This record gives sequence, structure tokens and C-alpha cells, in this order.
Amino acid sequence: MVQKNVTKERYEGMERKELNVIGIGPGKPEGMTLEAKAALDESSVIVGYPVYLSLLPAEYNTKEKIATGMTKEMERCRIALETADQGKTVSLVCSGDAGVYGMAGPVLSLADTFPEVNIRILPGVTAATAGAAVLGAPLMHDFAVISMSDRLTPFEKIRKRLLLAAEADFVMVLYNPESKGREGYLRKACDILSEVVPENRPAAYVRCIGREEEEAWTGTLSELREKQVDMFTTVFIGNSTTRCQNGRLITERGYQRKERL
Amino acid sequence: MVQKNVTKERYEGMERKELNVIGIGPGKPEGMTLEAKAALDESSVIVGYPVYLSLLPAEYNTKEKIATGMTKEMERCRIALETADQGKTVSLVCSGDAGVYGMAGPVLSLADTFPEVNIRILPGVTAATAGAAVLGAPLMHDFAVISMSDRLTPFEKIRKRLLLAAEADFVMVLYNPESKGREGYLRKACDILSEVVPENRPAAYVRCIGREEEEAWTGTLSELREKQVDMFTTVFIGNSTTRCQNGRLITERGYQRKERL
Repeated sequence: MVQKNVTKERYEGMERKELNVIGIGPGKPEGMTLEAKAALDESSVIVGYPVYLSLLPAEYNTKEKIATGMTKEMERCRIALETADQGKTVSLVCSGDAGVYGMAGPVLSLADTFPEVNIRILPGVTAATAGAAVLGAPLMHDFAVISMSDRLTPFEKIRKRLLLAAEADFVMVLYNPESKGREGYLRKACDILSEVVPENRPAAYVRCIGREEEEAWTGTLSELREKQVDMFTTVFIGNSTTRCQNGRLITERGYQRKERL
Repeated sequence: MVQKNVTKERYEGMERKELNVIGIGPGKPEGMTLEAKAALDESSVIVGYPVYLSLLPAEYNTKEKIATGMTKEMERCRIALETADQGKTVSLVCSGDAGVYGMAGPVLSLADTFPEVNIRILPGVTAATAGAAVLGAPLMHDFAVISMSDRLTPFEKIRKRLLLAAEADFVMVLYNPESKGREGYLRKACDILSEVVPENRPAAYVRCIGREEEEAWTGTLSELREKQVDMFTTVFIGNSTTRCQNGRLITERGYQRKERL
């Protein structure tokens, strides 16, 4: 099926019953896109997890806000759709990109129940690329993004993906490496990767990307194994060409060395 | 090595000899972040490939612009660094995210030669997530980003990564699927994937994401094999749970079906 100008036809001239699913980037408000800001400006209601709502600039304090709990994703999507269906322009906000382990999927899976609501997905900067920018340039070559959360995925599947990604020599980005109730998962990931990857492989993490409390760490896979991290941390494991130069992580672009001469 | 507040310390109070490496998002200017716009506003010189320079809003027409050819990446990076080293605030612009197969790596690899230049990497929305937003929600679960360009990578390595990514059941995003001189590469990729993935697996592409000529296609892996695409196209191949619903591509978030009940 070919669709021309999906963005334009789907979005223009819609003023009511509109739900914007917005990724606001990983941290500071300046990390959101101009179109995300415009969509928030036009919205009368903003729905989200309390932490994400608190990251929004003060200028949105006058808007109606609806906060729902962490594990209530489907309820949050339903509330956002129901509110839009009442004839309001609603923004559902996620950190990072709404399409990467975010609310875009759950919202669209409920779309048939709310056929009159125009759903717009607005992409944002995801933690993989925002964290990469803090660290240097680790994503200069093919990479895999893997969530360590086994809340919705069997751990055996996660283990298999880690091993195959290492065998494929992908740079790896681990989302949700640990959380309350999942302590020790980063150590488990490092132990699995050690089956394929040398222990001196460059590794890194960034915590609270773009926020006041931002913290970046670079080291090796074996050092990473001893680190304690949390759900606000994004972890990077280099490929066979990743190196650390003046505290910055750089992955070669294939034959880059040759090209540089 | 632990670094606190990298973003803040590295960037604040710097007015001269500054090079911003900026991902402006995949298409329209509204897709850039607020911080990217602020950095462009502060720059006196903008360096980039001619097509990317032409995507910038008219408000930047008064800035000094330096355009370099497509395959002259290292030259472009050197010019940007040299110009900054002369005491100017320079922005080097890339489409998408500068850290994903972009200019961040080449610039940082030359950083030692220009020790006085303060290099800032500003992330942008990359084609994987911008294309995903057009298509629906294909990146709800673990994914791999693979470039089909064998200009800097042996094709055997690309083949191996495609096969292992398929075996790992990653959603796949293919960058640079074809170009002049690399005709038939998408067909080659589909043939390789067919060794592991069923031919009715949902697949899609988006061409010229966010631009006037944007075009999205959804179908199956075997239909994708017959398509002709170009370097402005981003290709998606679903994982085992990806489905097409009302023309939108949605990947399940693990046990989502269970949660929805």
C-alpha cells in the first residue's frame, strides 16, 4: 500500500479530537523538537507519567494535566484517547521517543475503539542517540537497542538477543538496565556478553541525560559489571572498533582509518 | 572515568572557537530540537552537504554557508574545525542525528588537531524513529539499525549482521538501502533475510521523511524485494510480532496482548 504525504494529509486541518503522542526527548525541555513544542502549545490537555509532566517547562503549568502511575500504560493511553474523543486536543507525553518502547504502540492498538480521534505520533530524540552525543560518537556504525526489562519479555529472549548482537559485532545500547525489583540485571547482561565480547571492550553509561544531575561514565565491560545503575541510565557497549579517546567513545565508520589518510 | 554534568561543564560560557555538530532531523525544519535551533541562531558559519543546507529555514540565509561534496566528509569536518579554530562559532549540519553514521565520529577523530575548539554534539531525531512515527509503532521492541552501504564496510559483514539480527528477532531498520552504484542492494538484503524470515513478514519503507515528497509504503518482505528505493529511503522489517493494522505497522510490546485484557 502506497501513501503519499502521510504526514501532511493525516495532520493538516485537524483541530478537534486530536491526540498527539509526543516524545519530549530524554531530559531538558530544549531537547524537544519544534513540532513537539507547537503541538504542546496547541493542546488543552497534557497526559503523562508524573515525572515526565514535571520535566515540562513552566509555560505549560496553565494547561489541564492528567497524571497516571508508572505501570498503568494502557489506562493512560485510554484516558488520553477518551479525553481527545470528547473534542479536545490532547498531548500524551513520553520521555525520549514515543515510538521506542513508548506509548505509540499501545495508543495505536486502541485506535479502532476511537475511530474519530486523529492520532499523530511525533518523534523525539531517543536515549540511544542523546546518550551517544554525551559520550562522543559510539553509534557511527550498525547498532542494536535492547531493553533489559523482563516485565513483558522472557529473560531467555533477552539473553539470546545479547549473544546474537555481540556475535554480529553491533554496538549495543541497553535501555532499562536495572530498576527496583530488577537489581543485578546489568551484571547478568555483562556476564552473558562476556561469553562473546572481550572484557576490555569499551563500555559506558549515561544517567539522567540532559538533566541537572547528568552523569557519564566510560570504562570497560569488566568494569561495567561492577556498576550499580537504575532505570534512568542508558548503557553502551562498543563494537570491535570502538575506542576511548580523551574520555570520549568513538566507533570507527568501517574503513574510516583508510579514508583519513 | 566518571564525569558529572558533562553537558553543562563542556558547553557553558563558551562563546568562541565553538563547533556545534548538529543533527537537524530527517526532513522539515520543525523536526529539529529547540537546542539545535538555538545553536544555529548563535552560529556565524554553517557548514554542510548542499542538500542539508537547502533544508534549513530561510531565516539562516544571512549566515555564511560552506558547502562540500557528498563523499568529502573528512574535508568537511576539517573545514568546520579550521573555521571554528579561527575564532568563529560554527555549526556543522547533518540530516537526522549527527551521531548515527554521521559527522560526529569524523569530527571527534580530528579533535586532537584542534585542541582549542570546543566541540558540542547536538543529537537529533534519526530516520529510524522519524520513519517509525510515520508508519505507526514498529519500534516498540528491541531493534537493530543496519546500513546497507558497503562503501566503508565489507558486504560479508553486512550479510552476517542481517542474518544474526533476523535470528535474534530484532525489528530491523535499513539505512542507505540503495544508491547510484548500489542498485539491487535492497533485493540482496531481502534475499538474505528470506533465509530466516518468512516472506509474509510485514515490511515497510518511508522515503523523504517529513518532506513535501514524503512517501510511505507497507507490505510484506517478498513485496519489498520487488521495490526500487534510493538513498533517501529508510526500510523497516518487522519482528515476529509486528502486524499491519489499518495501514499502520505495530510491533507488540512483549506480553502486550496479555496486558490489554
